[in-house]
Amino acid sequence: MLNATLATQSDRQTLVHLSDYIAFGGEELVIIAGPCTVESRSQMETVATQLQRAPVQALRGGAFKPRTSPYSFQGLGVEGLEILSQVRSRHQIPVVTEVMSITQIELVAAHADMLQVGSRNMQNFDLLKALGEVDKPILLKRGLAATLEEFVMAAEYILSHGNSQVVLCERGIRSFDTYTRNVLDLGAVVALKQMTSLPVIVDPSHATGKRELIPALAKAAVAVGADGLIIECHPEPEKSVSDARQALSLDDMVQLVHSLHPIAAAVGRKIPASLTAVSA
Amino acid sequence: MLNATLATQSDRQTLVHLSDYIAFGGEELVIIAGPCTVESRSQMETVATQLQRAPVQALRGGAFKPRTSPYSFQGLGVEGLEILSQVRSRHQIPVVTEVMSITQIELVAAHADMLQVGSRNMQNFDLLKALGEVDKPILLKRGLAATLEEFVMAAEYILSHGNSQVVLCERGIRSFDTYTRNVLDLGAVVALKQMTSLPVIVDPSHATGKRELIPALAKAAVAVGADGLIIECHPEPEKSVSDARQALSLDDMVQLVHSLHPIAAAVGRKIPASLTAVSA
Amino acid sequence: MLNATLATQSDRQTLVHLSDYIAFGGEELVIIAGPCTVESRSQMETVATQLQRAPVQALRGGAFKPRTSPYSFQGLGVEGLEILSQVRSRHQIPVVTEVMSITQIELVAAHADMLQVGSRNMQNFDLLKALGEVDKPILLKRGLAATLEEFVMAAEYILSHGNSQVVLCERGIRSFDTYTRNVLDLGAVVALKQMTSLPVIVDPSHATGKRELIPALAKAAVAVGADGLIIECHPEPEKSVSDARQALSLDDMVQLVHSLHPIAAAVGRKIPASLTAVSA
Amino acid sequence: MLNATLATQSDRQTLVHLSDYIAFGGEELVIIAGPCTVESRSQMETVATQLQRAPVQALRGGAFKPRTSPYSFQGLGVEGLEILSQVRSRHQIPVVTEVMSITQIELVAAHADMLQVGSRNMQNFDLLKALGEVDKPILLKRGLAATLEEFVMAAEYILSHGNSQVVLCERGIRSFDTYTRNVLDLGAVVALKQMTSLPVIVDPSHATGKRELIPALAKAAVAVGADGLIIECHPEPEKSVSDARQALSLDDMVQLVHSLHPIAAAVGRKIPASLTAVSA
Repeated sequence: MLNATLATQSDRQTLVHLSDYIAFGGEELVIIAGPCTVESRSQMETVATQLQRAPVQALRGGAFKPRTSPYSFQGLGVEGLEILSQVRSRHQIPVVTEVMSITQIELVAAHADMLQVGSRNMQNFDLLKALGEVDKPILLKRGLAATLEEFVMAAEYILSHGNSQVVLCERGIRSFDTYTRNVLDLGAVVALKQMTSLPVIVDPSHATGKRELIPALAKAAVAVGADGLIIECHPEPEKSVSDARQALSLDDMVQLVHSLHPIAAAVGRKIPASLTAVSA
Repeated sequence: MLNATLATQSDRQTLVHLSDYIAFGGEELVIIAGPCTVESRSQMETVATQLQRAPVQALRGGAFKPRTSPYSFQGLGVEGLEILSQVRSRHQIPVVTEVMSITQIELVAAHADMLQVGSRNMQNFDLLKALGEVDKPILLKRGLAATLEEFVMAAEYILSHGNSQVVLCERGIRSFDTYTRNVLDLGAVVALKQMTSLPVIVDPSHATGKRELIPALAKAAVAVGADGLIIECHPEPEKSVSDARQALSLDDMVQLVHSLHPIAAAVGRKIPASLTAVSA
Repeated sequence: MLNATLATQSDRQTLVHLSDYIAFGGEELVIIAGPCTVESRSQMETVATQLQRAPVQALRGGAFKPRTSPYSFQGLGVEGLEILSQVRSRHQIPVVTEVMSITQIELVAAHADMLQVGSRNMQNFDLLKALGEVDKPILLKRGLAATLEEFVMAAEYILSHGNSQVVLCERGIRSFDTYTRNVLDLGAVVALKQMTSLPVIVDPSHATGKRELIPALAKAAVAVGADGLIIECHPEPEKSVSDARQALSLDDMVQLVHSLHPIAAAVGRKIPASLTAVSA
Repeated sequence: MLNATLATQSDRQTLVHLSDYIAFGGEELVIIAGPCTVESRSQMETVATQLQRAPVQALRGGAFKPRTSPYSFQGLGVEGLEILSQVRSRHQIPVVTEVMSITQIELVAAHADMLQVGSRNMQNFDLLKALGEVDKPILLKRGLAATLEEFVMAAEYILSHGNSQVVLCERGIRSFDTYTRNVLDLGAVVALKQMTSLPVIVDPSHATGKRELIPALAKAAVAVGADGLIIECHPEPEKSVSDARQALSLDDMVQLVHSLHPIAAAVGRKIPASLTAVSA
């Protein structure tokens, strides 16, 4: 059944363009990093400055935050988007942030280079349809208990409404074990790349919820054939307003990127040694 | 933590009013029945007429249908809502139908007595917030892999935005077994009634996906203390445009309601023998 | 495929005899109760004496205990079996206890009326085969993540080796939620009774791990069509050496049995009001 | 709590010796390959001869097979063990095979270099205790729904009874998705190596049940830090008597081992280029 979909009808790998120089699905892996939540301009400036040492190709940071409880901090909202915009202009680095509803699309699209759909909204079909009409790439995260077919079909909602620029993100699924927050399903990466022509990236931060597991799983994700990574890091992880337990320090993030080079090479992929190299 | 929420702060059971005469959470159980999807006016007329023999207190029927694939039938939309309106007026029976996005709320609220949030949207927080400002009761279905805390907190999004009329619906959770579509978690009914003051009903149709399991699970749901049931039935189940395998025939639905009387009595609850009795 | 098995080839319900007067699968439900672990003779004497007020038809109590850690208390072993024997003789009540390995079978069979296979051993095929050659009824508990087909096939190992006296026990399956220990799958009871001719009973104690959920789930189990229940209780639940959180007090256990009478009647089943009545 | 166990009390990585020259837990990865089931001497001769080209350090092959149904082929039994013995002597290569019950231990230990405990027996505590008294290394596979703590504690049953030579094997856990047979939990490999001092290997064959996913997951397993792999292959995969869908051809197996070299190098590990190199 899946064979009839737009996601699978291309003979070639779909390239999803984040900027003129950066695309998901090519030889170069795309690494996105940044804090769970945009907390302040100085925080994001520090993040951008430090991560250029890695380098990473894009920044992440939540302005609108989906939180289990309505009484938890819901993100800085518009102020968070403006901070992202400023950092993006000043550092010439693309930013990725989440959009939670149709009414936020226009605003988020004005400030970000890529719009993320979170796990809880993977089957928010009206949002997906609306994102099909947006001229920005979409990062679609797998639902916590979504089958691979459901995941591909969610992407198909976006594609069939006109937007072919969709990147899938495996971010861990629910299981019975409580040692890690979720179980990272790297077999899904391989399967998704066989089922569809879309790029697939991996989020080891939300998958595990424990920073000490992230570097090894990031290596595994590259080895398994992922087209990129999205990883949480923070200038002072222990002070993060959310998901503190899973954020890497910026130094550890830089170190992690460097450690991925030989793995990428071993599977015929590349990680840019500098952003100049990327844009050259 | 849950103790501080609106859902739990009442000493008494919350009553959620579906009409002047029907409320969830009282001595009388509320039984909602009808097809998965509104297919035609004649279909819904037959359903309403036949189910009055049971009787059931409300009709269900989907106008906007969340479907895994964008290429599956998405429901009759506005036409479906209008059919529901007509049947509701003519038969003087409340109707429950799903709302999938903020932009549909006003329209759906104009045609239905209760707005359903489907499993896939349980954590569509912007939709929940918007429903907090609606003057209609909300039927909130548990997400496929939602923990009880997440479920209660999703209700809390609605309550904290001003709408106290929320009914929780256990409808089966994902498991490893493929014999039934999902696993009906009746322990959740007991736990939810201990955790919150909100009424809790059970959907055995989506939980099992097999009609031959539904009558026994409906009895179990009543025995465990549920405040009502929502069950799929169809004039010609084998011709249903969706979920045909799980729809009861209308005769079987009527028979099922009758069979629940002694169970309800055994746990100190009632099922109305006629709608006149309900409204008296 | 399952149609070809011994478990399904009978046209009629299999009766599994616990004593001359007690059988699983008939009109009368069989209720088994007692502590998780046999702790002392006085404990078991108190249990037997008090539960005769319910009455229950059989006592449970572990002598050999499967424990996650090798450093946890492993049960009284042979001493526990001897206590069970004494109580069984003195009170003329059948006892059910677990057998963990082939080498224990002869010993356990000499002291107990029914041999239990625990969840962890549901696919210990060599043990199952050996139990197929024993002249005692077997209580086979569903594995924590066993599909229904695997469960029926595990019973088939016993049946195909010569012992037709097998009772299946649904005791909760693993899920992602941590509010209850496991999720009681009452749909499995209905399905198993459609798939096989074997009696099916329910263990709400291990399923939930919380005593406040047990009475309602016991009622639901009777309503759904279970042929019996196995429930943990203890003279002083808070002092139980294992699973203290889920044990009912003996008074609560007696009260629970009484509360099940109307539910049983509502589904055409009976619970004996006294053991004399049973044996009449 | 886990800190007090034997599995964790060593400051250093435990080395588990498969032969004088091969150990799990050192710089060199250990790769075990072979068919699901020993079918004939000629089959195993072909396997051994061909896999020496890889090379692999050990052969696997089931003589006693745990099967869901009692009517499925249960393995060649003693004849299978004798075939393993002959191939092992003739090719000077260690063999790993499963032991299903205490009564088989002596026999299996006489023919094999390492005794495997299958997933279904991970909490067959009497078997584990008996294996604690055996002078052979044990390969303990994770149960289908075992938590990491349960898995480590199962190993502890063996260790605390005197056998320190235990290798843990992650082989996929049960999930809701049916696209792959199970979900390979590579985060568990990282976590287990942090929780215990025992070597951890990965079985991508049973984890996925689909041969086209195996090479990528084998690379990921090496990247994540596994100490070895166990992989199913067969001279004619489509003719395998069991698990045909997941067996690699022998050529693909050889090719897979070669493809792992650069990944191993990238994480500071080695795969021997020839068995002579290993034993040098």
